[in-house]
Amino acid sequence: MTKKRLFITLLIAIYSTLLGSEVTKYIRYVYQGQESYGILEGETVRELDGDIFSAPTLSGKTLQLSEVQLLAPCKPTKVIAVGLNYRSHIGNRPIPKYPGLFAKYPSSIIAHEESIIMTSDATDLHYEGELVIVIGKEVKNITVSEAHNYIFGVTAGNDVSERKWQRDDLQWLRAKASDTFGPIGPVITTGLNYNDLLLQTRLNGELQQSERTKDLVYNVDTIVSYISRYLTLFPGDIIFTGTPGTTKAMKPNDIVEIELEGVGVLRNKVVAAKDKKGIY
Amino acid sequence: MTKKRLFITLLIAIYSTLLGSEVTKYIRYVYQGQESYGILEGETVRELDGDIFSAPTLSGKTLQLSEVQLLAPCKPTKVIAVGLNYRSHIGNRPIPKYPGLFAKYPSSIIAHEESIIMTSDATDLHYEGELVIVIGKEVKNITVSEAHNYIFGVTAGNDVSERKWQRDDLQWLRAKASDTFGPIGPVITTGLNYNDLLLQTRLNGELQQSERTKDLVYNVDTIVSYISRYLTLFPGDIIFTGTPGTTKAMKPNDIVEIELEGVGVLRNKVVAAKDKKGIY
Repeated sequence: MTKKRLFITLLIAIYSTLLGSEVTKYIRYVYQGQESYGILEGETVRELDGDIFSAPTLSGKTLQLSEVQLLAPCKPTKVIAVGLNYRSHIGNRPIPKYPGLFAKYPSSIIAHEESIIMTSDATDLHYEGELVIVIGKEVKNITVSEAHNYIFGVTAGNDVSERKWQRDDLQWLRAKASDTFGPIGPVITTGLNYNDLLLQTRLNGELQQSERTKDLVYNVDTIVSYISRYLTLFPGDIIFTGTPGTTKAMKPNDIVEIELEGVGVLRNKVVAAKDKKGIY
Repeated sequence: MTKKRLFITLLIAIYSTLLGSEVTKYIRYVYQGQESYGILEGETVRELDGDIFSAPTLSGKTLQLSEVQLLAPCKPTKVIAVGLNYRSHIGNRPIPKYPGLFAKYPSSIIAHEESIIMTSDATDLHYEGELVIVIGKEVKNITVSEAHNYIFGVTAGNDVSERKWQRDDLQWLRAKASDTFGPIGPVITTGLNYNDLLLQTRLNGELQQSERTKDLVYNVDTIVSYISRYLTLFPGDIIFTGTPGTTKAMKPNDIVEIELEGVGVLRNKVVAAKDKKGIY
């Protein structure tokens, strides 16, 4: 590197740090039976000592991405989701007066390349490609302008939804929070402008959803502020922000991909459950 | 103790153990800054080494109940609730064809004598006295007859509900899962016949709800089996089973008590939040 290039590189690094806009990709993975967080640079994984929410340090060890098994990039204590948050998805229904919230569970969460399990009584299982917020610090009762300080980064998510259960049940719990109904990943990216990222969904390679996050009815900071009035958020907690456009039913062996600009492609296969039919 | 009384006592102990019906009360508490589980016998706390779901042993140390600060008796990874599960509460609405589920969060859970916080925009905050199931072992996809093997015990719970939000919001999340909207305790009791316990609620000392758990539309084993089709349950996870009769609005400084036979009285005060008005 010439002195001039070194100078420019340093200048960019300082500038990015000052703006808090350094783009970094974080993963969680298993290597030789050991679970770690790491920074992903191209195909290289830089192992971290400690978790990503508590000022981790580089261990100095590096691995190739192909050597590790990716896990969901964080371990939430709670998973919240927003419904009806893109005009293209709301259609003729009224625009909500405030964010409409519902729940998933930590046990709904799966990683990139893990299988979405379709129980034998599921008949209308849809994908929903979404931007997912990852909380960085414990927080309660903050304003919209304070919210960005508590957001660690973003990832891609699939808010898997069983439409028949969603229509028929008292609440959306079974339809939205069943095991495997929350793929997230493959990475958490920090330093992105989460208010304008391209979000796309492909089913078996065919584009189904494509919209920019600037079209969210309630944007990321507003959602976090609103939720924080009622619920304490903790590091690693995640919020699905809503899906654009329309969705279709999936069947066993379908491959669904959610691509979020700056994050990459989250890919999962639908698999039929080997459950006990008529258990209930 | 005479030889005859000793013999009878031993016989009862053996009989109870064989039936798996030994009634034991478990608490979680803080003493001198240290968090522990313990067995409560009258006013005596027998400290346990380890958590109640992993074969704990008596440490040998005993304390008086008045010396410790009670915590919620377990730390769930998920909190599930069943709606419309007593005919006396359903009224003229149709009986659900299967259990209607909704979510609370671990951050909704508070202990006996902790305060239910009423945010400044809450206007119609109701109590709901309930029997709460505590799961003892990880489980997925079990039949009704297998369910009792995975149930550790029961506690009393207050499914605090903001009726205006419940009516107006997309889903019941804010209405049911806000911070402090899930008091449980004071103890978890094992070995009870959870299918026939008296459940009562008092508001400022006046009886409001009184019904036996034999009147549940979907009983405890059926609820656990049904949920296990869709969601993996873990040790310490809890399920609110529904409230009987009718409920009333509470206001700051009200005292609400849920009494479950074999468990005791869960008492909580309603307190107005010191939140930022108009934050959103």
